[in-house]
Amino acid sequence: MTEKVLALVTGASRGFGLSICEEFSKTNKNIDFVLFAFSFNDEKIQKITSDLKSFNPNVNILHVVNIDMSVISQVEKEFQSLLDKINMDNYTDVVFVNNHGSLSTLDLVENLSEFKQIESDITLNTTSIVVTSSLFLRKIKSLTNFKDIRFSLVNVSSLCAIKPFQSWGIYCCGKAFRDMLYQNIAVENPFENLKTLNYAPGPMDTDMQKEIREKCTHGPTKQVFIDMKEGGRLVNPNTSAAKLVKLVFDYKFTSGAHLDFFDQ
Amino acid sequence: MTEKVLALVTGASRGFGLSICEEFSKTNKNIDFVLFAFSFNDEKIQKITSDLKSFNPNVNILHVVNIDMSVISQVEKEFQSLLDKINMDNYTDVVFVNNHGSLSTLDLVENLSEFKQIESDITLNTTSIVVTSSLFLRKIKSLTNFKDIRFSLVNVSSLCAIKPFQSWGIYCCGKAFRDMLYQNIAVENPFENLKTLNYAPGPMDTDMQKEIREKCTHGPTKQVFIDMKEGGRLVNPNTSAAKLVKLVFDYKFTSGAHLDFFDQ
Repeated sequence: MTEKVLALVTGASRGFGLSICEEFSKTNKNIDFVLFAFSFNDEKIQKITSDLKSFNPNVNILHVVNIDMSVISQVEKEFQSLLDKINMDNYTDVVFVNNHGSLSTLDLVENLSEFKQIESDITLNTTSIVVTSSLFLRKIKSLTNFKDIRFSLVNVSSLCAIKPFQSWGIYCCGKAFRDMLYQNIAVENPFENLKTLNYAPGPMDTDMQKEIREKCTHGPTKQVFIDMKEGGRLVNPNTSAAKLVKLVFDYKFTSGAHLDFFDQ
Repeated sequence: MTEKVLALVTGASRGFGLSICEEFSKTNKNIDFVLFAFSFNDEKIQKITSDLKSFNPNVNILHVVNIDMSVISQVEKEFQSLLDKINMDNYTDVVFVNNHGSLSTLDLVENLSEFKQIESDITLNTTSIVVTSSLFLRKIKSLTNFKDIRFSLVNVSSLCAIKPFQSWGIYCCGKAFRDMLYQNIAVENPFENLKTLNYAPGPMDTDMQKEIREKCTHGPTKQVFIDMKEGGRLVNPNTSAAKLVKLVFDYKFTSGAHLDFFDQ
């Protein structure tokens, strides 16, 4: 059977999400994409399409979905409606990457104040992943040829999921939540063809890093990130995405594992 | 200086929360309480007061606060208003126990459906702790005699915070989030007189266990809990609370640690 890949990627319009799509495209497999982001527009979609096709003419973007991951009723409705449109029968690999996330407030816990916004950020970073993962699992477990397809659920994690950092509380907590969710899904699904992966991509040279250098109010932490940028020590997002794509296609990782870009 | 303790306890009207208050009372110190619960009424307050005073006549219940921990605007307002009323200057120990929590839905991730309710449960289990902890820290760090008081922030955790279990996804994730928050607060506050503790009390014979035996939809998991109850292997909540109170007053634990009732 010819390899045919379906990749669903959230937060796909820029940064690491876009790099993931590019690296998937470079594998030269037949690959269909479903892309989710907060604000796609025609221009952006056209740009991404020609970008991905430049790496691989066999790339198809099946759907692009504008979605606000902090509004749970919308996440459920839009994601379910998308799943209803997709026929997964003809794929050899289906990969679902939950990449979206918010830095939220970078400050010491004692300085937090905008709790309404923080609540919304936490919902985006945690509950939305519960919803998308649950609906996705329900869909694939109902397929008559479930056993014939190799499924990967990837959570874009962080070192913050397993290690606390000063002024990174909200972000760390959200990532710890997500890692545990994917560990739970792993123990609930001991199938050879369904694996979850918590992938920590390393500190990458993306817009998010720019946001960190601008928003972080904790002097020493902020300086660490400024030094990383100035010292050229930030990871190229495509290099990290290429490692993720290799992990997914090798399919040798232990389901539920937390793997880091810097792991050997 | 005579020891004088202030204990703030959430989810204090029953179960482990009430056991914590009882065991604090049994230490025979001068102890003032502030109790939070979803639904206090006069009868319940009177019963708790006479219960605690029966262990220790030096017990005072300063305030009882009805609070819905799933409504963040309410949590912020009520908790801040409570903190504004309290003068902490005269205490030797101030202990804040975030004990409240919801089991939420006990089911496999693929079977989850009531996402509106799950969102609310996750807010209660996660964001509310961010708010109460943040406001509490801001208050105590502003005290002129901060250094003279010993502060403990206790998160009632669970084995679920560090180990996934089938059909316990939402609960596990919330506990993982909380553990990470208290690790973050620990690294942000390297003071000898301010420690956080993630305490896993063990499977206790409380109303929550009854709820588990009734609500759990995953057969094998449900059976484990039925067997624990029938085999008399559930932990007495007062035995577990006594261990927590000893940990807090010995004050030898490493800040940010996850300690379990079953640890030696």
